[in-house]
Amino acid sequence: MVLILNGPNLNLLGSREPDIYGSATLAQLEEACRQWGSSLGVEIECRQSNFEGQLIEWLHHAEEEGFHGIAINPGGFSHTSVALRDAIAGIRLPVVEVHLSNIYARDDFRHSSLTAAACVGAICGLGADGYQAAIRFLAG
Amino acid sequence: MVLILNGPNLNLLGSREPDIYGSATLAQLEEACRQWGSSLGVEIECRQSNFEGQLIEWLHHAEEEGFHGIAINPGGFSHTSVALRDAIAGIRLPVVEVHLSNIYARDDFRHSSLTAAACVGAICGLGADGYQAAIRFLAG
Amino acid sequence: MVLILNGPNLNLLGSREPDIYGSATLAQLEEACRQWGSSLGVEIECRQSNFEGQLIEWLHHAEEEGFHGIAINPGGFSHTSVALRDAIAGIRLPVVEVHLSNIYARDDFRHSSLTAAACVGAICGLGADGYQAAIRFLAG
Amino acid sequence: MVLILNGPNLNLLGSREPDIYGSATLAQLEEACRQWGSSLGVEIECRQSNFEGQLIEWLHHAEEEGFHGIAINPGGFSHTSVALRDAIAGIRLPVVEVHLSNIYARDDFRHSSLTAAACVGAICGLGADGYQAAIRFLAG
Amino acid sequence: MVLILNGPNLNLLGSREPDIYGSATLAQLEEACRQWGSSLGVEIECRQSNFEGQLIEWLHHAEEEGFHGIAINPGGFSHTSVALRDAIAGIRLPVVEVHLSNIYARDDFRHSSLTAAACVGAICGLGADGYQAAIRFLAG
Amino acid sequence: MVLILNGPNLNLLGSREPDIYGSATLAQLEEACRQWGSSLGVEIECRQSNFEGQLIEWLHHAEEEGFHGIAINPGGFSHTSVALRDAIAGIRLPVVEVHLSNIYARDDFRHSSLTAAACVGAICGLGADGYQAAIRFLAG
Amino acid sequence: MVLILNGPNLNLLGSREPDIYGSATLAQLEEACRQWGSSLGVEIECRQSNFEGQLIEWLHHAEEEGFHGIAINPGGFSHTSVALRDAIAGIRLPVVEVHLSNIYARDDFRHSSLTAAACVGAICGLGADGYQAAIRFLAG
Amino acid sequence: MVLILNGPNLNLLGSREPDIYGSATLAQLEEACRQWGSSLGVEIECRQSNFEGQLIEWLHHAEEEGFHGIAINPGGFSHTSVALRDAIAGIRLPVVEVHLSNIYARDDFRHSSLTAAACVGAICGLGADGYQAAIRFLAG
Amino acid sequence: MVLILNGPNLNLLGSREPDIYGSATLAQLEEACRQWGSSLGVEIECRQSNFEGQLIEWLHHAEEEGFHGIAINPGGFSHTSVALRDAIAGIRLPVVEVHLSNIYARDDFRHSSLTAAACVGAICGLGADGYQAAIRFLAG
Amino acid sequence: MVLILNGPNLNLLGSREPDIYGSATLAQLEEACRQWGSSLGVEIECRQSNFEGQLIEWLHHAEEEGFHGIAINPGGFSHTSVALRDAIAGIRLPVVEVHLSNIYARDDFRHSSLTAAACVGAICGLGADGYQAAIRFLAG
Amino acid sequence: MVLILNGPNLNLLGSREPDIYGSATLAQLEEACRQWGSSLGVEIECRQSNFEGQLIEWLHHAEEEGFHGIAINPGGFSHTSVALRDAIAGIRLPVVEVHLSNIYARDDFRHSSLTAAACVGAICGLGADGYQAAIRFLAG
Amino acid sequence: MVLILNGPNLNLLGSREPDIYGSATLAQLEEACRQWGSSLGVEIECRQSNFEGQLIEWLHHAEEEGFHGIAINPGGFSHTSVALRDAIAGIRLPVVEVHLSNIYARDDFRHSSLTAAACVGAICGLGADGYQAAIRFLAG
Repeated sequence: MVLILNGPNLNLLGSREPDIYGSATLAQLEEACRQWGSSLGVEIECRQSNFEGQLIEWLHHAEEEGFHGIAINPGGFSHTSVALRDAIAGIRLPVVEVHLSNIYARDDFRHSSLTAAACVGAICGLGADGYQAAIRFLAG
Repeated sequence: MVLILNGPNLNLLGSREPDIYGSATLAQLEEACRQWGSSLGVEIECRQSNFEGQLIEWLHHAEEEGFHGIAINPGGFSHTSVALRDAIAGIRLPVVEVHLSNIYARDDFRHSSLTAAACVGAICGLGADGYQAAIRFLAG
Repeated sequence: MVLILNGPNLNLLGSREPDIYGSATLAQLEEACRQWGSSLGVEIECRQSNFEGQLIEWLHHAEEEGFHGIAINPGGFSHTSVALRDAIAGIRLPVVEVHLSNIYARDDFRHSSLTAAACVGAICGLGADGYQAAIRFLAG
Repeated sequence: MVLILNGPNLNLLGSREPDIYGSATLAQLEEACRQWGSSLGVEIECRQSNFEGQLIEWLHHAEEEGFHGIAINPGGFSHTSVALRDAIAGIRLPVVEVHLSNIYARDDFRHSSLTAAACVGAICGLGADGYQAAIRFLAG
Repeated sequence: MVLILNGPNLNLLGSREPDIYGSATLAQLEEACRQWGSSLGVEIECRQSNFEGQLIEWLHHAEEEGFHGIAINPGGFSHTSVALRDAIAGIRLPVVEVHLSNIYARDDFRHSSLTAAACVGAICGLGADGYQAAIRFLAG
Repeated sequence: MVLILNGPNLNLLGSREPDIYGSATLAQLEEACRQWGSSLGVEIECRQSNFEGQLIEWLHHAEEEGFHGIAINPGGFSHTSVALRDAIAGIRLPVVEVHLSNIYARDDFRHSSLTAAACVGAICGLGADGYQAAIRFLAG
Repeated sequence: MVLILNGPNLNLLGSREPDIYGSATLAQLEEACRQWGSSLGVEIECRQSNFEGQLIEWLHHAEEEGFHGIAINPGGFSHTSVALRDAIAGIRLPVVEVHLSNIYARDDFRHSSLTAAACVGAICGLGADGYQAAIRFLAG
Repeated sequence: MVLILNGPNLNLLGSREPDIYGSATLAQLEEACRQWGSSLGVEIECRQSNFEGQLIEWLHHAEEEGFHGIAINPGGFSHTSVALRDAIAGIRLPVVEVHLSNIYARDDFRHSSLTAAACVGAICGLGADGYQAAIRFLAG
Repeated sequence: MVLILNGPNLNLLGSREPDIYGSATLAQLEEACRQWGSSLGVEIECRQSNFEGQLIEWLHHAEEEGFHGIAINPGGFSHTSVALRDAIAGIRLPVVEVHLSNIYARDDFRHSSLTAAACVGAICGLGADGYQAAIRFLAG
Repeated sequence: MVLILNGPNLNLLGSREPDIYGSATLAQLEEACRQWGSSLGVEIECRQSNFEGQLIEWLHHAEEEGFHGIAINPGGFSHTSVALRDAIAGIRLPVVEVHLSNIYARDDFRHSSLTAAACVGAICGLGADGYQAAIRFLAG
Repeated sequence: MVLILNGPNLNLLGSREPDIYGSATLAQLEEACRQWGSSLGVEIECRQSNFEGQLIEWLHHAEEEGFHGIAINPGGFSHTSVALRDAIAGIRLPVVEVHLSNIYARDDFRHSSLTAAACVGAICGLGADGYQAAIRFLAG
Repeated sequence: MVLILNGPNLNLLGSREPDIYGSATLAQLEEACRQWGSSLGVEIECRQSNFEGQLIEWLHHAEEEGFHGIAINPGGFSHTSVALRDAIAGIRLPVVEVHLSNIYARDDFRHSSLTAAACVGAICGLGADGYQAAIRFLAG
């Protein structure tokens, strides 16, 4: 069972800067994730929050909820949140970071990712396919 | 209809460092905003939160709530929040950033504003008059 | 009586990068300032110079000329001139800095403003309306 | 009456990186704090939150709740939160920052503490004893 | 048809720092890539070079050789080679960067990737599975 | 018709640090420019000023004076003047920056050129021949 | 038995910047330390030197002199002395760093502490109470 | 006899980012160079390599091959290669650096040129005319 | 014969920030300089300008005007003007830089002095006495 | 009575890099200081030490020894010693810093002076005359 | 058996900047190395390449070729090549870095050595004797 | 006759971090140095001090004591002491810097060596063999 966490502003998907983030909505992305999971025999649960504290608590409780891995798109928190980084480092489940856009080709303050350093690995720039790759890795 | 958003610690107005922020309370500031709006024939709604996630969600929903513009004083989030910046960049309403004090004359880490870069513009150092100028601009 | 000072290259207004600075000429901007002043019962005088030394001297003599406040758009000098900053800090009149464009969203070397730190406050990104807000503040 | 605030991820104490943070749980740490307070004749109240906004609001209301001092372990927020710093600077109660581990011997981004600069002082690296020292200081 | 390019030192796979890069050899990794390609109906060709110039020329000629996409692990060149970045930017084929280890958790000079900025996206930390994800993306 | 602008201290040519700038005087350099222009059928006008404001105004008026291009040696202003950079960016004539010495081999603060970024291109280190190349380019 | 080491300029206590360091003299501080030790059944020895080399040698010999722990206020050496840091790292006794003032709220070059990174932990801003806390910790 | 060296990716001229580098191919550029040389009575030889080592060796052997000067476009190596810089500094022939585009107006890491500091001078932003100017200078 | 040059804002002496710059006016300072010169048998001429270009030209012509040395207080230009630095380096007369206040104890951007590096030496923080020392040195 | 303190390596005067520091020995410099003092009716005492701790202690005791001011050449300690800076700031006597050479024109790490910021002012580059100016100032 | 690797531009030894690198040729240096080896009973093989890829491959194959240690002078690659660093870190043979000149006394970008960090140690500034010391160490 | 100087904390050799510095004591290292010297017919004298001032004075007097060269391990002073650097630069004897460990592979603040820049050269990472190489070089 894999948990998909989407962070701040990802609820705007489809309407927010579609040239960068694509025209699919969050609901469509989450549905695609569930189907990819289904095809791999893995149950998928998707959640989104604009609150750092909520994301931290979902991470804390994921293992006791029965998840085996987590794919997280921390949005803007990737670049600023030591607390989120600590939450990822503080749990035992494998976490993979996903970004829809290529953060290396963005503004300077988006190049580094504090949170990715605490993850197993990271995928960026592949759009929704990045989620698929993370699910496949975690299912593996 | 203009939305006035005040961020963290602005509920302390009047008691917090009054030599920097003045002796008027938040309630007095908000009342002044409503009167300035009234004199311009613009309805004003004022909200305050110490939660980044709450500010992000108010920004997300402002257009569907019928607002035509937003004046925001992000407080300390100006200098640290990529997520708030993304929220401002992700909506279509014009947003004007307001600071009561002159951030250029403050501590080093207050000079830059991540969020202002996603706004139409910014006003600082004019005290409550900065809100009036923002309302007038958005009403224009 | 309020003095409006425009610094280097603002005489090019209307022809210089109109997507950033708008299509109004300096003469039109100055006329608008005089009208805003008139509606507030404040006499407005507008001057422009491409010489740092000239701007410094106008600042030095403004009080003895009878002005009660100064709105200044230092153009490129904002980002480089300690001498202009010292001139603003060295006089007793309130000074408000105005930029037509949003300096936070420009090139890196335009983010900081040496001169704004010596002003009462600063307004950027509101186009000509920024001048109006400064006049209103100084008239207040 | 002293308020003990623990920030993000401190609810993981005992299971999170025990070689750094020790094997005692948060409940055990809080019980120890209450006992230290008791031996000094000081009432202790302990709270924990992963939400920056919640910590800010507890700080705001501490004086009206009757507390005389606050010991705070801001966790990862120490290194990133201007808003929390402003909250500490905006209240009149003395605040002491506590870290279980020695932040000087950690990763680069953990060396500086934005929040400690607004506190009376800070203690790090002494484990639970740091809380005891803070309580004793505030009780003093 | 997808081209897999491995850069400097990847011929040491299996013997070089196996705790970081795993114990599989380059030949085994390449064989796995060919099988993943085969299962997706995509022909895979694998090449390795320790010469920056050779990698640049393979990139230049890939389209005329009939490839439809390229997965590249530039090894140490990721962090230093503007020339390789220019080669990726100068061709029309989609390129995906792959790193076996999590570069965010490595030494400081490994955090940024000059070359990734010119790619469609990047995958790191997933070991050999990163190549699989890149092939699947390019095959898609 | 090409305008040659020389900035601060270039009137000292021939006596100032001749090992760096050569022994020819400014008058000799200007005469050489006029002869190079003559051989190309292009009228050349040469001006020098130690005042940033004067250089800015010559740039502003060059098109209405009938010039088709400008070669400028901004001297020390290259490294410090945002205002001059704005002037170059604010006009439509092509501008080529020329330096007698190789600025890459000079002191650290001479490496970058703020003004060159607003020019079509730049030439340095070729001595007087750099002016000839600029004239030829602008005449082309 | 605990050794209290005070570094450069701490002999000026009471007369040096009393608004920062308090009005108690070093003799009074040392007497207080001895009394705190006495109440805990721990023998205290206090030494002060303005010589880095002397502090290093006291650290080297502390174990053979029979001490069980060291509290050190390295004064200005905290921010500059790699040699002192090496001395602390090179011995087996636990060392706690103490600063009377809050170094986080001081000049930029006082924020970091090279020496604290080699200590068990550090206490700053609590005035003389910081010494008490260190003694109590080391006695524990 | 003048040697023209073109570095990595310049073989892509005409197809690579033509808005930056123009639509002429390398063959056309080299032919133009030969014709410019011919009109000046100077023999021109043109070589291109994507290998840093090859460029270094051509520089080493140029004098013994009978060349009197070298024009080099080091491409991406300008910004990263100390070895190429050493090669230029290690020979006695005059070397002029040429860039087709204006490196001052490019990405941050393209502003500085390690190699230009070892050359006589540098020309950028003038397109193919930059090569002509270099040839004329070296022929002079 | 010694030339005393005072730069921007020094005409405000006596009224500008008197706690930093003292209450004597520029006229009084200049009269003191003339008297110090007189007592040393050295003719003194004092000039002030707010224009960088004017200061540069006074430096250029000082030798032909018969001066034997120059004391200059460049005010804010010390920290920003490469052109003024070049003017000092470009003449043969000895130049001594004087600052009334202690620039080492001022804002960060006032610590360094670009112009002092081209002078024989510099004096700061001694108030008007700094001018006397410079005159005495140049007279010597 | 004025105390002249010379720091590390100044005992080498006359033999150490005489092109920078001159050919006079320390004994000759000290004799000159005594004569300058004598001509001003001020007693001068000169001391030199290569030990930072010794210099600190001389500063501490100068007032009780009857000195009215101190001129100090801290040599290399200027650029590195926070402890010496604290000693200067911790006493009430006026201290003037003197450097024989122009530190602005030296290596990068010599530009700033930590100690000068705690002094009344500083003189550099005037050779032995700098000591004379300091004595005269302190005698004044 | 010890392998001596010389990197880019070391084939120019004797003619390249002889004041820095000495007048001995590479052939003479290599002959000296063989004689030093001979006197120690160690076989020496010397190779030089201007190609980073070639040096990497010699490192990769050294153990299977029967070498027991490697002395490498990476020339300019020391300061820029992560790939070479990885090659050194990726093999099991001990590697000692040698520089003829003292890199600490060179240009800024030569101070650090990326490759030395992966070696056992490094020797610089001792000229050819540095090679001798490396051979002796590896022979030891 | 060669002088061996060991700086701060080297008296701890054998007990301090033996995984980095080895298990031999300083006495054993010094005895080894004397034997290496003996085998080369060079008299060796070894001294150690934890006082920067003492090391400076030994350097100053070494020539008059009859030494022909100095090998120094400045320990932590390498990274911080401008005074020690000046002492090395101020004497005429050749000085070689030695570090037991590889400073390039240590903490960031250990990478650079201020003192090595004033030496003839430096050796690091070869353990005690580094002293032998230095003695051999100085004996040569």
